[in-house]
Amino acid sequence: MNDTPYLTVDVGRLDRNVHAVAVGAAAAGLDLRPHAKTHKCAEIARRQLDAGAVGLTVATIGEAEAFAAAQPPGGADLFIAYPLWVTEHKGARLRTLAAAARLRVAVDSVEGATRMAAEVRGVDIDVVVEVDSGQHRTGVPPEDAGAVAAAAARVGLRVVGVFTFPGHGYGPGDARRRAAQQETDALAMAAQRLRDNGIDPIVRSGGSTPTIEYAGSDVLTEIRPGVYPFGDAQQMELGTTTADDIALTAVATVVHRTGNRIVADAGSKILGADRPAWASGFGRLLDHADARITSLSEHHAVIEFDDAAVDVGSLPVPGDQVRVVPNHVCTAVNLVDGLIAVTTDGTEEHWPVIARGANA
Amino acid sequence: MNDTPYLTVDVGRLDRNVHAVAVGAAAAGLDLRPHAKTHKCAEIARRQLDAGAVGLTVATIGEAEAFAAAQPPGGADLFIAYPLWVTEHKGARLRTLAAAARLRVAVDSVEGATRMAAEVRGVDIDVVVEVDSGQHRTGVPPEDAGAVAAAAARVGLRVVGVFTFPGHGYGPGDARRRAAQQETDALAMAAQRLRDNGIDPIVRSGGSTPTIEYAGSDVLTEIRPGVYPFGDAQQMELGTTTADDIALTAVATVVHRTGNRIVADAGSKILGADRPAWASGFGRLLDHADARITSLSEHHAVIEFDDAAVDVGSLPVPGDQVRVVPNHVCTAVNLVDGLIAVTTDGTEEHWPVIARGANA
Repeated sequence: MNDTPYLTVDVGRLDRNVHAVAVGAAAAGLDLRPHAKTHKCAEIARRQLDAGAVGLTVATIGEAEAFAAAQPPGGADLFIAYPLWVTEHKGARLRTLAAAARLRVAVDSVEGATRMAAEVRGVDIDVVVEVDSGQHRTGVPPEDAGAVAAAAARVGLRVVGVFTFPGHGYGPGDARRRAAQQETDALAMAAQRLRDNGIDPIVRSGGSTPTIEYAGSDVLTEIRPGVYPFGDAQQMELGTTTADDIALTAVATVVHRTGNRIVADAGSKILGADRPAWASGFGRLLDHADARITSLSEHHAVIEFDDAAVDVGSLPVPGDQVRVVPNHVCTAVNLVDGLIAVTTDGTEEHWPVIARGANA
Repeated sequence: MNDTPYLTVDVGRLDRNVHAVAVGAAAAGLDLRPHAKTHKCAEIARRQLDAGAVGLTVATIGEAEAFAAAQPPGGADLFIAYPLWVTEHKGARLRTLAAAARLRVAVDSVEGATRMAAEVRGVDIDVVVEVDSGQHRTGVPPEDAGAVAAAAARVGLRVVGVFTFPGHGYGPGDARRRAAQQETDALAMAAQRLRDNGIDPIVRSGGSTPTIEYAGSDVLTEIRPGVYPFGDAQQMELGTTTADDIALTAVATVVHRTGNRIVADAGSKILGADRPAWASGFGRLLDHADARITSLSEHHAVIEFDDAAVDVGSLPVPGDQVRVVPNHVCTAVNLVDGLIAVTTDGTEEHWPVIARGANA
């Protein structure tokens, strides 16, 4: 018996989720390059690659280093989907990485491209231009992608395409479909602007677990979903997964009950504190659809049940274990050194989170 | 030059903060038992103890194990301020701990006390009853503290007092003062109920960085603030600290600018995602009082400046480093393996976060 709280993976569900998205991408004619920031775990990366993924997406040089080290000889194929500001030291790390893995990096400004070129010149790295498709985070407006690509090419970078992250698809109602349409439109325009500048946009890469079902293969060549191997409470509430497909939970022990309120020992230090305005709480209970996590401290989840649950005595009591679905699985996994993976025959395996805390 | 993002500690400010609260507690006749979940760091615990702290507070058995291992022979004095549900394995860990450290633990129910007594019977552990002073998380109503204490004593536990955490003092306006008053009232009533049951409430222990300035020594014997060595953006906005006393920041690099919006490479995986409704954003910039972090992704802080900053050209540009103050320093520290501590003479030291991820 593992001491609570801990994160556990249902490997049967995980494999089902990994397979379903791989099949869907293949059917749509899209390369699948899963975002490994979600799981940071070599065992899951291997499953994704075995199912047909063309490579992995990562967010940082540190994550790329971890997955390059974990891959078999022959090398990893890694996309750092972040507009790095390449200092001298980060440049040296990129050059080392490029010797060990096939590497693709991102730029979203002339200054950033110039800086990168000064550090990585001469090594074998693909470059893509980040486009803002409506999230208004990083990325250039699609109409500016050609100018940035041309500037990057002039300073010696090998520009192979464009990418975007439709993060504004994380929202209720019609947000997913609309963000997917904006993603397609933005990539189409940006790709055309590259062509206008004499650069072939071979790569046209988009998100994301909430938007993949709308990804059109006529414009996109590649998708980069992250969350789909596990699912999480955000995805449940967005309607992209159901409780039956959730593959990662925090196992917690109930330590307190007062009336219809229980407190479990999984707090923000294992679930993460993510709580978008449209979410119904700080996570969900896998086995109690009507319960809500109404507040979250570092080591306490305060969970409220409706009075009917109290009346029928169906709510958990102190000493019971509950399975908590984090709102955002990427930040939850980053809080632990390992996952307790339970295979379909009930065997427990320890899967190290090899890129935990690899922020830089 | 360290690669960004990373967490850095200004040791001069840290020592000033540690000293100020120690002096204040001594002047008020209160024992100081800082909550080490904030820093999880032996170097800071040592500073707190050297300044007069009577021991440390921790949240989990794992944290207690880390600090017991880090303390010099003679042993640590640790309070696990959490109503543990003591399984057989956690019981064994508590017994091992009790042999290495002076240990105090918490109960808040008859069932929890019975479970604990079954596992720790015979070893030298103090027990205190957790009281709910208005946060409505764990803890018994103050009027029930006597009954729980008496039940705990009957099953063989050594009950030495009561404690509460006035977490509802984390709020704007008058919340801190009101929560401190409720804390005092709750502990006074709970202590009396112990006396009514023939138990001497030697320990009457309260929070918390936001409420310590109101802590009354006539009822309380002890305070357990956590955040005060560092401060954070929440405390700045609550008015318990100022930018000049903030001792921990995330150093980040600006990677993008569009108009009055910049993006820095410190996201929720190094700042934490805590964002109470009353906070002005997801953290603050130490050197730009008017900037706000309007959204936070795993590796992006989107920071907006007012137009005046743009007009005068005073906002940071790509390649610049900025110092980001996390909203909640306890969850930020838990995301890294170590802190870059900069002493007053400019020397950099690496302080390991020895209890990172010690959730169980």
